[in-house]
Amino acid sequence: MSEPDLDEKLKEDEAAAPESGQDFASPEHESLDEENRLKPEFVRSVKEALDEEDFDRVYELVEPLHPADIADLFELVDEDERPVLARSIRDLMGVEVIAELNDWVRELLVGALPAEVVAGIAEQLDTDDAVAMLEDLDEADQQAVLAEMEPEDRAAIESALSYPEETAGRLMSRDYVAVPESMTVGDLIDYLREHRELPTEFWEVFIVDALHHPVGTCALSWILRCPRNIPLYDVMSRDQTLIPADMDQEEVALRFQKYALISAAVVDPSGRLIGQITVDDIVHIIQEEASEDILRLSGAGDGDINEPILMTVRARLTWLCVNLGTAIIASSVVGLFQDAIARFALLAVLMPIVSGMGGNAGTQTLAVVVRAIATNQLTDTNTVRMILREFRIALTNGAALGLLIGGGTALLFGNPLLGAVIGAAMVINNLVAGLAGILVPVTLERFKVDPAVSSAVFVTTATDVMGFFSFLGLAVLTGLA
Amino acid sequence: MSEPDLDEKLKEDEAAAPESGQDFASPEHESLDEENRLKPEFVRSVKEALDEEDFDRVYELVEPLHPADIADLFELVDEDERPVLARSIRDLMGVEVIAELNDWVRELLVGALPAEVVAGIAEQLDTDDAVAMLEDLDEADQQAVLAEMEPEDRAAIESALSYPEETAGRLMSRDYVAVPESMTVGDLIDYLREHRELPTEFWEVFIVDALHHPVGTCALSWILRCPRNIPLYDVMSRDQTLIPADMDQEEVALRFQKYALISAAVVDPSGRLIGQITVDDIVHIIQEEASEDILRLSGAGDGDINEPILMTVRARLTWLCVNLGTAIIASSVVGLFQDAIARFALLAVLMPIVSGMGGNAGTQTLAVVVRAIATNQLTDTNTVRMILREFRIALTNGAALGLLIGGGTALLFGNPLLGAVIGAAMVINNLVAGLAGILVPVTLERFKVDPAVSSAVFVTTATDVMGFFSFLGLAVLTGLA
Repeated sequence: MSEPDLDEKLKEDEAAAPESGQDFASPEHESLDEENRLKPEFVRSVKEALDEEDFDRVYELVEPLHPADIADLFELVDEDERPVLARSIRDLMGVEVIAELNDWVRELLVGALPAEVVAGIAEQLDTDDAVAMLEDLDEADQQAVLAEMEPEDRAAIESALSYPEETAGRLMSRDYVAVPESMTVGDLIDYLREHRELPTEFWEVFIVDALHHPVGTCALSWILRCPRNIPLYDVMSRDQTLIPADMDQEEVALRFQKYALISAAVVDPSGRLIGQITVDDIVHIIQEEASEDILRLSGAGDGDINEPILMTVRARLTWLCVNLGTAIIASSVVGLFQDAIARFALLAVLMPIVSGMGGNAGTQTLAVVVRAIATNQLTDTNTVRMILREFRIALTNGAALGLLIGGGTALLFGNPLLGAVIGAAMVINNLVAGLAGILVPVTLERFKVDPAVSSAVFVTTATDVMGFFSFLGLAVLTGLA
Repeated sequence: MSEPDLDEKLKEDEAAAPESGQDFASPEHESLDEENRLKPEFVRSVKEALDEEDFDRVYELVEPLHPADIADLFELVDEDERPVLARSIRDLMGVEVIAELNDWVRELLVGALPAEVVAGIAEQLDTDDAVAMLEDLDEADQQAVLAEMEPEDRAAIESALSYPEETAGRLMSRDYVAVPESMTVGDLIDYLREHRELPTEFWEVFIVDALHHPVGTCALSWILRCPRNIPLYDVMSRDQTLIPADMDQEEVALRFQKYALISAAVVDPSGRLIGQITVDDIVHIIQEEASEDILRLSGAGDGDINEPILMTVRARLTWLCVNLGTAIIASSVVGLFQDAIARFALLAVLMPIVSGMGGNAGTQTLAVVVRAIATNQLTDTNTVRMILREFRIALTNGAALGLLIGGGTALLFGNPLLGAVIGAAMVINNLVAGLAGILVPVTLERFKVDPAVSSAVFVTTATDVMGFFSFLGLAVLTGLA
């Protein structure tokens, strides 16, 4: 038992050491606020220095920043300042900065550079980052850059580009450590020490058989803790999650999350190891995919605030036009009851309440269902149970709201029939909302349509149409108007 | 250069080896569909076996599953089947399964167990998982369980519980490897080999000074690749991200994402190392926090499909009642124009188009802005630029939609004035939507109110009220009705 010794040693050191006045914040803390964002004052000084063309001052300000913060800085300065900023901090523009840049910001900067410079950057980047940089260039520019690259790097990028976007093949890194199962722990350590060209950061070693098929995985902590003479075969875990190269990145992210993976082997259709995916890339994807669902549900397109404004306008306007169509359908339902409204205009005053509340209830259900589908929590197995669950919720909420608004209307306007009609319409429209909120996304999912993209249109059409129809229809039916 | 040798060796092996017929899917593949979810047939067989009380069959079916899939299975069977399932697979209910269970499902199962059994489970779990299990119990049950635990484990959990929920202190693991800076690479490897009680999986080693303050971090891959005699002082990275124990988990997740961390040291206010957070816990948080934003924007509460139905009803109904208030405000605006509507009922037919389209446009902006705030992309520095951006988008989209609907209305109803009125109202309401969509969340954020929770109410109130007011008001003003 020498663990206590170490503790002992630490304690002795502690007793002897003078009080440390060291500051433990990250080195760039002066430019960051308490939420780790660049301070407005700091960004303002950079912008002022850029304005005054005091490029030494710009360099001096930016130099202490972490590459991720330099990348953020590019987003925060104005679009026309970005190329100037890049020029004034040229030798700080390392691969880490390029890799961290927002796609649109990077495209702007990269677009301004000659092909051979871009090729030079791409050669230094990890394959996945190089691909991210090149995949959005147009075909001709992409070819020009690839032509300038070393054959080996070019081959890696071309191979990555041969997989569809957002698949494991695009995402994977071709730098990984794979060794044959015959090695011992000692052999592996020697091999790692001798081979300087291996990646410097990796978390697991893949053990492959003679056909380069992965047969197991060794966490580095296990290797460090085993005697040298133990064969890797006895240390490795055989329980692996292999990622086919054509798997969608959202699916990959779900596997990482479900099985708490740090890295995973990517295999080709014949089962050969061709790359690895590490969790740091997955973190971005989980963030992106979850954000995508919010943005798609609300029809906000890509939602990237750095996207060129015309693309944003186009994406949002397309969605608004689709919604205009549904609004016209709903409005034509109201049109059917125009005479009733002319006779009893109070109907027009109250009808938006019924349709609006249905819309709100539908959106609630939709948000829950879309997330449950995206995270694999809602599957064929529990769909029926969830439909019943939403039905019960809708009935309860509809009844509560119906009583509330029905009672209120009856009292306020001294018209019990009007209260009964709006109360009943509220119950009906809540049921429509709850059922549409789950049936629409579940059905779309079954037809392999992304439920986040198109569900909202159908659900709000249903709640608008049924809201107006049930309220105005009941009003006419009961002889109210 | 012996790297080619290894390749050579692999190639030789390959030539000699027979074609492997090994299946590379995970061992439980028969029970999983292509998206890695449990197949409905499989779940059905488990439910049938539970129904027939054939517990051996249940065990046989569940045994090959990964713990994460066993946890999923509990979600997929009915609520009353869960305790029976737990009993029939008692010795498969390892800590991994407990840790992976949905909070609500776990609460149900744990609630049914005596305190000493729960204490036994908690002792085996990592502190963070044990805390997750115990934090939702009521005070008395929690105390009963803690009283049954070993003093050391109890102390760890009590210390975790002393931090507020959703902070680094709750989340961190107290199992980590920290060594003094005086060690060499060889010392460290020996230390790790000798001390069996150290955690088995870790990705980085923290180097601490005499006061137990972290001074650097060593990735295991660097240690493996260095000669034994090199001091850790020369290998470690001094560029660390230290997490204060009271930092909010969302903030922690953003740091991990920004700096691509695998693990990070958690420090107390005096800067002493007290725990570590690893990226696998962060992956869940990113997913949760992003989902939370969707669910909050739509007022769906927690959105957990396993939540007891009464809690779901309460959460959603609260939100619907708030919205009922805003709907009544909007409706009272219509009430102001009741006479105009009685004279010209077509206004009632068209008015939902103006308010609805404003609502859609506002939701788009809101979704983008809420995500940009949550991911630290929208800061004080670029708020003004983003407001201008949304203004331009709103103006463009409003003009386009105004022309479309105005022109259409003028032609369809042969009434150019009506077309002009609805077109102008559309432009106005789009501007209201765009500005409210950004100003509301930005203002709430400034007052430290979560913009995802309350923005939607304000934005839809604004677009409904202004939609009705601008359209009906212009109609009256121009003498249309």
